[in-house]
Amino acid sequence: MIRVDGRAPAQMRPVYITRHYNKYAEGSALIEVGDTRVICTASIDNRVPTFLKGAGKGWVTAEFGMLPRATGVRGIRESVKGHPGGRSLEIQRLIGRSLRAVVDLPALGERTVILDCDVIQADGGTRTAAITGGFVALVDAMQTLVTEGVTPRLPVLDYVAATSVGLFEGEAVLDLCFAEDSAAEVDFNVVMTGTGRFVEVQGTGEGTTFERADVDRLLDLAVVGIRSLVEQQRAVLGSLAEEIGKRRGNQNGAAGTGDQK
Amino acid sequence: MIRVDGRAPAQMRPVYITRHYNKYAEGSALIEVGDTRVICTASIDNRVPTFLKGAGKGWVTAEFGMLPRATGVRGIRESVKGHPGGRSLEIQRLIGRSLRAVVDLPALGERTVILDCDVIQADGGTRTAAITGGFVALVDAMQTLVTEGVTPRLPVLDYVAATSVGLFEGEAVLDLCFAEDSAAEVDFNVVMTGTGRFVEVQGTGEGTTFERADVDRLLDLAVVGIRSLVEQQRAVLGSLAEEIGKRRGNQNGAAGTGDQK
Amino acid sequence: MIRVDGRAPAQMRPVYITRHYNKYAEGSALIEVGDTRVICTASIDNRVPTFLKGAGKGWVTAEFGMLPRATGVRGIRESVKGHPGGRSLEIQRLIGRSLRAVVDLPALGERTVILDCDVIQADGGTRTAAITGGFVALVDAMQTLVTEGVTPRLPVLDYVAATSVGLFEGEAVLDLCFAEDSAAEVDFNVVMTGTGRFVEVQGTGEGTTFERADVDRLLDLAVVGIRSLVEQQRAVLGSLAEEIGKRRGNQNGAAGTGDQK
Amino acid sequence: MIRVDGRAPAQMRPVYITRHYNKYAEGSALIEVGDTRVICTASIDNRVPTFLKGAGKGWVTAEFGMLPRATGVRGIRESVKGHPGGRSLEIQRLIGRSLRAVVDLPALGERTVILDCDVIQADGGTRTAAITGGFVALVDAMQTLVTEGVTPRLPVLDYVAATSVGLFEGEAVLDLCFAEDSAAEVDFNVVMTGTGRFVEVQGTGEGTTFERADVDRLLDLAVVGIRSLVEQQRAVLGSLAEEIGKRRGNQNGAAGTGDQK
Amino acid sequence: MIRVDGRAPAQMRPVYITRHYNKYAEGSALIEVGDTRVICTASIDNRVPTFLKGAGKGWVTAEFGMLPRATGVRGIRESVKGHPGGRSLEIQRLIGRSLRAVVDLPALGERTVILDCDVIQADGGTRTAAITGGFVALVDAMQTLVTEGVTPRLPVLDYVAATSVGLFEGEAVLDLCFAEDSAAEVDFNVVMTGTGRFVEVQGTGEGTTFERADVDRLLDLAVVGIRSLVEQQRAVLGSLAEEIGKRRGNQNGAAGTGDQK
Amino acid sequence: MIRVDGRAPAQMRPVYITRHYNKYAEGSALIEVGDTRVICTASIDNRVPTFLKGAGKGWVTAEFGMLPRATGVRGIRESVKGHPGGRSLEIQRLIGRSLRAVVDLPALGERTVILDCDVIQADGGTRTAAITGGFVALVDAMQTLVTEGVTPRLPVLDYVAATSVGLFEGEAVLDLCFAEDSAAEVDFNVVMTGTGRFVEVQGTGEGTTFERADVDRLLDLAVVGIRSLVEQQRAVLGSLAEEIGKRRGNQNGAAGTGDQK
Repeated sequence: MIRVDGRAPAQMRPVYITRHYNKYAEGSALIEVGDTRVICTASIDNRVPTFLKGAGKGWVTAEFGMLPRATGVRGIRESVKGHPGGRSLEIQRLIGRSLRAVVDLPALGERTVILDCDVIQADGGTRTAAITGGFVALVDAMQTLVTEGVTPRLPVLDYVAATSVGLFEGEAVLDLCFAEDSAAEVDFNVVMTGTGRFVEVQGTGEGTTFERADVDRLLDLAVVGIRSLVEQQRAVLGSLAEEIGKRRGNQNGAAGTGDQK
Repeated sequence: MIRVDGRAPAQMRPVYITRHYNKYAEGSALIEVGDTRVICTASIDNRVPTFLKGAGKGWVTAEFGMLPRATGVRGIRESVKGHPGGRSLEIQRLIGRSLRAVVDLPALGERTVILDCDVIQADGGTRTAAITGGFVALVDAMQTLVTEGVTPRLPVLDYVAATSVGLFEGEAVLDLCFAEDSAAEVDFNVVMTGTGRFVEVQGTGEGTTFERADVDRLLDLAVVGIRSLVEQQRAVLGSLAEEIGKRRGNQNGAAGTGDQK
Repeated sequence: MIRVDGRAPAQMRPVYITRHYNKYAEGSALIEVGDTRVICTASIDNRVPTFLKGAGKGWVTAEFGMLPRATGVRGIRESVKGHPGGRSLEIQRLIGRSLRAVVDLPALGERTVILDCDVIQADGGTRTAAITGGFVALVDAMQTLVTEGVTPRLPVLDYVAATSVGLFEGEAVLDLCFAEDSAAEVDFNVVMTGTGRFVEVQGTGEGTTFERADVDRLLDLAVVGIRSLVEQQRAVLGSLAEEIGKRRGNQNGAAGTGDQK
Repeated sequence: MIRVDGRAPAQMRPVYITRHYNKYAEGSALIEVGDTRVICTASIDNRVPTFLKGAGKGWVTAEFGMLPRATGVRGIRESVKGHPGGRSLEIQRLIGRSLRAVVDLPALGERTVILDCDVIQADGGTRTAAITGGFVALVDAMQTLVTEGVTPRLPVLDYVAATSVGLFEGEAVLDLCFAEDSAAEVDFNVVMTGTGRFVEVQGTGEGTTFERADVDRLLDLAVVGIRSLVEQQRAVLGSLAEEIGKRRGNQNGAAGTGDQK
Repeated sequence: MIRVDGRAPAQMRPVYITRHYNKYAEGSALIEVGDTRVICTASIDNRVPTFLKGAGKGWVTAEFGMLPRATGVRGIRESVKGHPGGRSLEIQRLIGRSLRAVVDLPALGERTVILDCDVIQADGGTRTAAITGGFVALVDAMQTLVTEGVTPRLPVLDYVAATSVGLFEGEAVLDLCFAEDSAAEVDFNVVMTGTGRFVEVQGTGEGTTFERADVDRLLDLAVVGIRSLVEQQRAVLGSLAEEIGKRRGNQNGAAGTGDQK
Repeated sequence: MIRVDGRAPAQMRPVYITRHYNKYAEGSALIEVGDTRVICTASIDNRVPTFLKGAGKGWVTAEFGMLPRATGVRGIRESVKGHPGGRSLEIQRLIGRSLRAVVDLPALGERTVILDCDVIQADGGTRTAAITGGFVALVDAMQTLVTEGVTPRLPVLDYVAATSVGLFEGEAVLDLCFAEDSAAEVDFNVVMTGTGRFVEVQGTGEGTTFERADVDRLLDLAVVGIRSLVEQQRAVLGSLAEEIGKRRGNQNGAAGTGDQK
């Protein structure tokens, strides 16, 4: 089977992560997955949401947007519509949950990391690219806290990355581009840590349904893709890569109990 | 292990479905799952969304809301906030996808069924209750089209119902109430058809992560729960129950091609 | 003259009040007046609006909403419209004023009772049903303050209930259902206390006008209807019924100075 | 009893109506009642609301606003708040109903008169001033239809004007200024036609209640005030005054059956 | 060349400024420039915007609105649109900047003057009329601070007024009315102080372009117009006129270094 | 005088224009002016605004936005605020006017070019960068019409570019970066065509005022900067550069009467 862009079923598109893409943000990255491009910036705000005041721990939240012409047909600007669309809200909730799963929130202290993920060009997999690129921006923002002496070690417990997998003409394929995504029968977004534990598994039949065996082969394929994404995160983070997960010995739940892989 | 409300791990809460709860809607049901109560009404609109105009098929969409005091702490009325919250939008997108998966949209013709799911009292599992109760309202609304001679057979290809499962203190439990849902480590919402095929599998680590074996045992448990919900739908629909899936011989994709039971 | 639903001109529809309808709210009731059904919940908030800060007294406010399919034609969800409609705002201002008229606001202290009135099914008289049912919810919420020792006696000075009356084909009729309300020449909403004093008299010619004698006979009819509603409130409140108005000896204005029957 | 501004209980404030105040609108008036000033413009739109399409008759609607500094304390501009306030919506619904009661809507034909009432300075009685001044603007706008040959006679069946009355320190007073309105125990807004028939009677206890005898004496006082306002409308309309009500012989309901006064 | 309303190219329309037009505002004026009429009120608020808290100086801000029928075709009410239009926001930013240029903000102290400019009737030049009339309202509001002993001298450094100039059929004309403004090739709004220094020069080609020599002759013409407007401000302010600019000796930048004229 | 970033007063920052930056838009460019980066996309919509329907000519409109972390302090996302900010609206109106000045709207035909200008990173001069880069995107979008045979020649009459100039510590400087812009006494945005005619001159005193001689020297400096920007547009457009202005012989007003330079 040859895919629309010539890839093999288990082959990802080329991935490039440009670290420090923005000169103002505490952390930032431009991630390109094929023709999908997402700018991720991580900003630190020394406040927490109301429900966490006095709880002695921090928070990670995300906002997701698309430029009007990120897509083939120009979309209405979200500020003109008057509010973020339902799809944007759903995606940013997913990004926030995914990143919080690998952050040591008590070690972060009472502050919030706001991750802005803005899609410059969309060709499928924008939400998973945002998680993968957003993690790099997050780590850099966290490191500023170490540099300033706010926290002794990087409060990041593990890597986290994400990809999509799906059934396309009956075959399981990795990292769907837009043309595949529109035609796929089943679409899974999978978020996984560097130690191979799942954070989110979101599988949806697109006008059809799927069976238990489909879940199995799609998760297998996602694991392959996410492992390679984590390798790229590790490479781009350079010397910081070593710092991730060092706190895991005394962790409080996130990233599991340890001997995975 | 005894659960907070005394149930066994694989035991659902009592479920009651009151059909024809509203005298105006083409179809309606009040569903009660333990203390969770959702009013579902299905309204028929003889228009389709812009993207379907002239496509010769229909649509099913959902709107989800909660009364301000459906919860322990009074929430701000959504009309006062100025727009539906992100959580409501995410839920209503899930409900719409789930019900579309079992509707024969070409047989429905160019009309829309709007499913309103309003939570009167929330005690966990509101989105899955809305799918389960919404299906009953949908079938009754569809039947009005048969009665009026618009479509020769009920354009409903299969049953669909949903429940939540989760890991609570390490144990897999079925149909989480609010107290369990708040404390669960992992939470899955599963939507399945009457013939046992999945429509949606949404698994989320709540501040933690999970492994492949967890996926397996949670899906097993969900299947048990959804089978019993379908039995209840069948019972409350009475003579209409026989009509569901009759069209499946000449179906176009939904509910699979299969040798399901 | 036989009315559309077979009633005599001075006959109300059957009224049922289900107390404690919601398990979370400090007070709650489902009121059914014929096919009109309104859920009323009373929530206590330990704050007052800005204009009352430091004034040493409390406040009662109301919010009114209708589910989209409460009516024969599905209405647009108010959260989608982006704000409560003008009619909803007008009704909730009326409900708030009506209930404040019988509450001993200084005795309530610096807290607010928020009354949510949500119409599940509308068949005329929703605003007056909301006042009548809302009073029951309010009393129960007030009683939690007595139980908690916040206030020594129930800060409720009198009963309050409401009904509509109108001219339909020239005849004065009590408690208009929707079919009558749409066709009535004149429509009055009347709010009255248990001791027979008026709180609000809102009379409107619907595309026509009316004369002084009409005011007289319509008010006479409303008094009959409201008296019977107060009897039902008294019955459903049981032992709490005796506590209402006990504070009236040292009252500050509400419910008048006196010798009411 | 001497009132805060030296008037007798049954004395209105000075009233001035400046016709043709705006050079663009089909009809316009500036009405001044004491220090209350309202600009009323009537615009003709050759469309009707959706619910009247094809019904062969017209509509009259109103919009009401206040300049931010129309009051002692500057209010937030309504466009900044994002929507008209509940009070504005309630008032503009009242103005619309009041004027429709004296318009021959079938003779108007399928067009809408939009009445804009903008309060330049508020000192009590803004809604009743808007009705009284708005009527003059409406008549001039209607006359442009006669002039253009659209309708053979002025489609105005009767005069309509409005005032407020209230109980202030136990005494019935006419045309309350802001200082009185804030302190009044009971406040009635009364809308009446030139032939003495009521269009609206809205009586409200302000933190207190009232009895049947109060209704009687307040309506008596309102009738006196409104009669004098109609005289002023008649004077300012000059030769057009004679045309009002000429169509009443073949009218369809509005303004009653006739020989009143 | 004769202009559409018979004026000579360098002739302004008649200007009338009615001081103290509103009885509540600290300062107010109705300005009429031909048929353009703008109500300006200046309100004092004892707070400053967040970015100035603790900065020891005050602020001047403006809000601009138009009544729906200020124009030949009725516009949608801004509160109904849900937010101020882009043109209104642009204009109010200009008005605010223009007035701040002549106010001694440190002498004003930590308070804000809010200038509301509401167009009652628009016939070209509404934004420049708002600046010219707004200055008079501002001075009166500032004088209340002197009267109350808050500031020893009037914190107003200079006069400020504005007019429009443009190229109409190739000729430079002063103070464009709406008919000219719609047809002009080039339109400049010029804001200048009493001592002849510019605050704003906004020149726009309307579907065409202009050259350097046009800038010169249009600015010459604007200077003539604004000088006459300042004379009218001086006349209407009476004894207060002398107080303006007295503080200029120890000024901090605004209005330049002094010996202009 | 040495500027904050080491430039000479009349020296621009490095400018890079990346053509075809977006794979979907009919025309697109990334413009970088120092650290300011703006993505410009031009989309063609085969409709015109209501006011142009049937007028036989086209339209160019612009929308302007900033990513939340384009600035040193993270800004609130405009979709969250609920509407574009006043500054954004003012800027996009300027961009639209500037580009329309060089487009042959009748030759464009009844279609709209929508220019989206999104600031990825802001360091002063975002609006002028958007005009300069937007012109390149516009030309490419226009060329698709030529390629498709819709219009025989490129409907672009002239180049247009823009820069800012200002007085900084009394000296005239070209192309202000953010640090300079914040501290400048006077700030001019100037838009000019390739043939040296002005489209917009917007000069503002920032808390101060300026005199006639300042206008002269600032415009001189702007002309120098814009000429170099036009050279860069010409270079990046390659073979298309020759096509610009070819229609100017039979033009209708825009870009003047021709032999300038």
